[in-house]
This record gives sequence, C-alpha cells and structure tokens, in this order.
Amino acid sequence: MARVIVDVMLKPEILDPQGQAIARALPRLGFAGVSAVRQGKRFEVDLEGPADDAALAEVRKMAETLLANPVIEDFTLRVAE
Amino acid sequence: MARVIVDVMLKPEILDPQGQAIARALPRLGFAGVSAVRQGKRFEVDLEGPADDAALAEVRKMAETLLANPVIEDFTLRVAE
Repeated sequence: MARVIVDVMLKPEILDPQGQAIARALPRLGFAGVSAVRQGKRFEVDLEGPADDAALAEVRKMAETLLANPVIEDFTLRVAE
Repeated sequence: MARVIVDVMLKPEILDPQGQAIARALPRLGFAGVSAVRQGKRFEVDLEGPADDAALAEVRKMAETLLANPVIEDFTLRVAE
C-alpha cells in the first residue's frame, strides 16, 4: 500500500486572508522574524496498490477535479517515503 | 530568506470526517483504488532570516501554540529547499 501526498496551496497571486491573519497575529503573540504565512491543504491519499504511473495519473486527475480548485489553487503530488 | 513548511494532520486515532467524505465520494466520481484519505493543513512560514536552530525552535513553538491543536493534531516541520 502506497501513500500519495497532495499539497494544495492558493496561487501566489491570490490573496490568502487566513495566512495574513496568522502573520499579523504573530508579533502580538510574541513571535518575531516571520515575514509571511500562507495556509493551504494537505491530503494523504492511501492507495490499495502501488504508486505506479497509472495510479499517480489517477490521483492527479482526482486532485484537479476534486481536491483543488485549479482556478485559484496549485497542487503538487509526491509519493510518501 | 528561508521558508519553513509546517504540516498539521489530525492524530491517527482522531476521526477525520472531511477525509472520509472525500474517500466515500471517490467511487461515485469514477475513481477506484483509494483505500483512505485524510485531510490536514499546510503552512508556508517565510522567515526574515535564515532557518537556523533558533528560528526553527521559534516556528516549532508557533506550531504548538497557534497552528496546531496538540490535543488532536500532530505537526511536522521542515525547511523548504
């Protein structure tokens, strides 16, 4: 059984109010030295079989149509070690 | 300027209704071969300086107190390449 990690982040040109709220709260909470924070989603997709090319193509299709909104989000796939 | 990635996932023993909803929807949407999905959060924390030990300790404290709920969530830190 293989695990594929799908990371979904807002495209760089899309404002991220959640991340900005965190970044703005940090100094107030005593944390210094952070210039920006962006928040996204992380999916762990467990496959029944191995993470071969066919399975990865299937997860990619899944990410494009279901896990990410390609209008505003980018995603990356990787096989977990 | 360094970037630290903080991945936050529900602890394995905590039910993940979002992930389960995705996993259950997949067959209906024509995707086979997935045994489980878990959904978490991913933070990109941009530092003003380098990702040295002091900065990473600071981000770890931030993750423990602000980005993750340690009662129900685990987190991992890594420096982005």
